[in-house]
Amino acid sequence: MPYVNIRITREGATAEQKAELIGGVTELLRRVLGKNPATTVVTIDEVETANWGLGGLPVLDYRAAQAAKETQR
Amino acid sequence: MPYVNIRITREGATAEQKAELIGGVTELLRRVLGKNPATTVVTIDEVETANWGLGGLPVLDYRAAQAAKETQR
Amino acid sequence: MPYVNIRITREGATAEQKAELIGGVTELLRRVLGKNPATTVVTIDEVETANWGLGGLPVLDYRAAQAAKETQR
Amino acid sequence: MPYVNIRITREGATAEQKAELIGGVTELLRRVLGKNPATTVVTIDEVETANWGLGGLPVLDYRAAQAAKETQR
Amino acid sequence: MPYVNIRITREGATAEQKAELIGGVTELLRRVLGKNPATTVVTIDEVETANWGLGGLPVLDYRAAQAAKETQR
Amino acid sequence: MPYVNIRITREGATAEQKAELIGGVTELLRRVLGKNPATTVVTIDEVETANWGLGGLPVLDYRAAQAAKETQR
Repeated sequence: MPYVNIRITREGATAEQKAELIGGVTELLRRVLGKNPATTVVTIDEVETANWGLGGLPVLDYRAAQAAKETQR
Repeated sequence: MPYVNIRITREGATAEQKAELIGGVTELLRRVLGKNPATTVVTIDEVETANWGLGGLPVLDYRAAQAAKETQR
Repeated sequence: MPYVNIRITREGATAEQKAELIGGVTELLRRVLGKNPATTVVTIDEVETANWGLGGLPVLDYRAAQAAKETQR
Repeated sequence: MPYVNIRITREGATAEQKAELIGGVTELLRRVLGKNPATTVVTIDEVETANWGLGGLPVLDYRAAQAAKETQR
Repeated sequence: MPYVNIRITREGATAEQKAELIGGVTELLRRVLGKNPATTVVTIDEVETANWGLGGLPVLDYRAAQAAKETQR
Repeated sequence: MPYVNIRITREGATAEQKAELIGGVTELLRRVLGKNPATTVVTIDEVETANWGLGGLPVLDYRAAQAAKETQR
């Protein structure tokens, strides 16, 4: 009877990949905790990159900053 | 002062139906717990069917599998 | 197949009241949108009053401020 | 390592404003609790006005009702 | 950079089982979507059984009803 | 009318610190987006460290692993 919410940036995950996430999480809960797949609910939220922040920056700016750091090394 | 989040699949709920959900939940919290409607917040998330899983399957596949079972009986 | 999350302050809601919320929300979704009660999941989160803010204040401070305003009228 | 979810109505927040929210919340958590910005995640959900309820009404109806009250005074 | 929230009833999951859920979900997101484990956040919410509803009933009542149905067959 | 949910590990945040988070986030939303503090709701969820994962590990294991890496340098 678990409920799982997966939040990722919206960057082109396919229906097949989402199905694999749904099946994989449901199986994980069955295997580890014996949870009944029949009543396991999984939702996937795809969040616009402008609406996702990490390190105090929108995620695309964050990645650009990380890449710049790598280059400087 | 409650906060309620209703998550459903995106399948054509109308503005009237959403208004009825908002009014109904707010009234329920007033009646059962005496919560003040003035500060009760309700949000409705409509989730794409490809992003909603049940029984380890995306929901449209789940429904097709259930329908196939019914037919076999 | 809806998922509903109800968040309230932890202030002594009884098991009977919670059961009434669960039954009431599930019935509302069945009546308004035809959702199947068998796969409707409802969770209730009871949040400590120190962890709930309204009007920029923890909720007990907020209520005291509101009460003080009323008295002044 | 905090996770912050900000939910607002979808009413034209710009990328600059969202970046300011992300930076502001991350800095607040660093200042108040010493949380590491590098692992602070912030997501912003923009919810359609028809899907946001306050005072038992969809938010645009709520605002119209509030405005009507003001006029009557 | 994903965020995953797993909600289960509070019924004695051990620290080892929780660690297995955290590791399993993180690995799933890496394998299916190439998500970086270093910035994948997983939280587990254990919800009191009185606060979890299914089929319009608190979950312990729901299970008792299901068991009674099985017996009648 | 925003709703903000702040999730942190349960590690002794004081009532004063929580009040500062509530006031700070509410002020940030007023300043950046002109949101009305009177209807801004903030909740803080304190999650047990065993229930919080980062980098595929429960957070205390994650920190120990990071500290070990630092030592090796």
